Amino acid sequence: MSQNLLESIRTDIADLPESGIVEIMNYGRSLDRDVIGLWAGEGDLPTPKFICDAAADALHGGDTFYTWQRGVPPLRAAIASYLSNLYGVDISAERPIVTVGGMQAIVATVQMLCGPGDEIIFPAPVWPNIFHAAHITGAIRTPVTFTFGNQGWKLDLDKLFDAVGENTRAIFINSPGNPTGWMATREELIAIRDFARERGLWIIADEVYGRFTYDRDHAPSFFEICEPDEKLIVVNTFSKNWAMTGWRIGWVTVPEALGQVYENLVQYNTSGVAGFLQQGALAAITQGEDFFKNEMLARCKTARDIVIDTLERLPRVRLAPPDGAFYAFFSVDGEENSRDLCLRLLDEVGVGLAPGTAFGPGAEQFVRLCYCTSEAQIRPAMERLAEALA
Amino acid sequence: MSQNLLESIRTDIADLPESGIVEIMNYGRSLDRDVIGLWAGEGDLPTPKFICDAAADALHGGDTFYTWQRGVPPLRAAIASYLSNLYGVDISAERPIVTVGGMQAIVATVQMLCGPGDEIIFPAPVWPNIFHAAHITGAIRTPVTFTFGNQGWKLDLDKLFDAVGENTRAIFINSPGNPTGWMATREELIAIRDFARERGLWIIADEVYGRFTYDRDHAPSFFEICEPDEKLIVVNTFSKNWAMTGWRIGWVTVPEALGQVYENLVQYNTSGVAGFLQQGALAAITQGEDFFKNEMLARCKTARDIVIDTLERLPRVRLAPPDGAFYAFFSVDGEENSRDLCLRLLDEVGVGLAPGTAFGPGAEQFVRLCYCTSEAQIRPAMERLAEALA
Repeated sequence: MSQNLLESIRTDIADLPESGIVEIMNYGRSLDRDVIGLWAGEGDLPTPKFICDAAADALHGGDTFYTWQRGVPPLRAAIASYLSNLYGVDISAERPIVTVGGMQAIVATVQMLCGPGDEIIFPAPVWPNIFHAAHITGAIRTPVTFTFGNQGWKLDLDKLFDAVGENTRAIFINSPGNPTGWMATREELIAIRDFARERGLWIIADEVYGRFTYDRDHAPSFFEICEPDEKLIVVNTFSKNWAMTGWRIGWVTVPEALGQVYENLVQYNTSGVAGFLQQGALAAITQGEDFFKNEMLARCKTARDIVIDTLERLPRVRLAPPDGAFYAFFSVDGEENSRDLCLRLLDEVGVGLAPGTAFGPGAEQFVRLCYCTSEAQIRPAMERLAEALA
Repeated sequence: MSQNLLESIRTDIADLPESGIVEIMNYGRSLDRDVIGLWAGEGDLPTPKFICDAAADALHGGDTFYTWQRGVPPLRAAIASYLSNLYGVDISAERPIVTVGGMQAIVATVQMLCGPGDEIIFPAPVWPNIFHAAHITGAIRTPVTFTFGNQGWKLDLDKLFDAVGENTRAIFINSPGNPTGWMATREELIAIRDFARERGLWIIADEVYGRFTYDRDHAPSFFEICEPDEKLIVVNTFSKNWAMTGWRIGWVTVPEALGQVYENLVQYNTSGVAGFLQQGALAAITQGEDFFKNEMLARCKTARDIVIDTLERLPRVRLAPPDGAFYAFFSVDGEENSRDLCLRLLDEVGVGLAPGTAFGPGAEQFVRLCYCTSEAQIRPAMERLAEALA
């Protein structure tokens, strides 16, 4: 009967793969040993108290009814103000739409732009969920692999543009990139923008790691170079900056003209985000600057140095120090299959990494290590890895 | 530029209509007068304190990280136990999957079963979001209209079965029904089950109003007549029973064999439901029986009597007393367009109803009144309506 049931659903949905990261996490959790898990894209800090208080107060205050599908107006205004200040541009409060995490922002965007037969192009390796979200809508997904060399991960723009065909509707750019740490230069963003304008393409910019940078205040953003009514959708989230991964709240910034369409998509996918969660998000984005800089980013900077220092001393390891985000993405000479390597690292030294096989083509031999964590956690993890990868 | 942007997205997505209910709500909120809003499918009670406390405690306790995509195990076990007790059957804890409200349960189910060209059949009028969710996946949506007569809303099973064609994949049954209050008998459910078995169809059962009944403990359920590995997906929510509409948390019960597929769909649509919200839901389903019976259902019973009593004395009103759910769905002789009527009722007497035009074919002349509210609210509302519809 079970086989029968799987055969009676949509074939392409039955074929959706299990997250390759979750598989490793489940294995690690099943082990009878202490495990330092650096597999997921989240830090070790719980959400700060001032954010939790804001949500809990709203919850107890009765903010438990249906609310605005685009997000509550004060939060949308605060997001617009935050983006305007960060990027030195004027973002209208009509443009941000609150979503169930960056994930829904990507899903609804793909639903809006890429139906069956429409093509979406993206540099890879990349966070796999964009790949699978586009799979669900029936879009054609065309990866363009980064090159990896002595200068780190590089995007060949000619290769990217050559991949565009008559069915291409959108280019998905995740900068700073998960898992690679690649960060587009302003010049690269301008080149992509100009090409998109010329060809009438949409740009979907996943800028959730935009503030996790190590040599500047923030990563170059499409906000800085695009017009308000450009074919641009920017995905963002509260998850990373303010330790709110578990909350499932993010936002997307769209041209004003698409506000009603996006509202409809939120309505018919999930019917909005809890009002009291939005109050927590409002506290985060209006009062969370100290936390982000002094706690979240600071620990990433410290941990990044420790991680790079350790890995660079291991002769088998090939690593390009990440320009942005909070991952080290490296290969190990002699290790052909990253899934096997991740399982072995759990067994042997109890360190949990994410396998490159989870991130699509071009990453099979790599593993991802999330260093958004405390020194007390990253030091022993790196000692163990140094032992296992010596 | 705006027109250009709308023309450059998917035509079928640009065509998604704004919720016909939200349009009326927005108009009502814009008025400079007191308005009694009976338009939305929610009551007037905020979430009970014991539920809010459970969520707030988990939030402050650091339950703010990514969690199980199918839902946390204790909540899944509690849902299984709740359903088993309610329906006197044995539901495995592997079957419930926690979702972002009943809405996501429907969306992911439609994604799983009905791609482009696949057909879904549903009795109508019906809650419009199922219609639009299927629109997004490209499914063919075939309504089969209820008949409305002296016996109330009736489903012609022959007409339903005759509508099934070679591309039909699923029948969507919402009983008790929103907006009609129609409640399928056990015999009707069995007939649908047998037909579905014979034709290899899936049944999608939206049973979110299953406990809002007025002459029995609960509505007949597909759980009572189907096997665990049947082609049956049952949609449910915490919203209605426990005054948690704004939380956006529900669940879906699937055959065990589809657990991984459904997990993948949750992962790639929204990446799960906040762990701390799930702790609130756990409190609701394990400790919420008194609240549901003594507060929520009790106020519906009282208000229903008042509503029926008033409407039955109005000669222009055609109403079938609802068997279940918490809506009065009625037409008014001489009023051809329910949207216009709803706007006029707001202007003239400040009562907010939902227009039948929002609920698809067969409902253009009807309006929906939600009576899940206090006597203090429903009495003046009905006095005003009696005046306007005399």
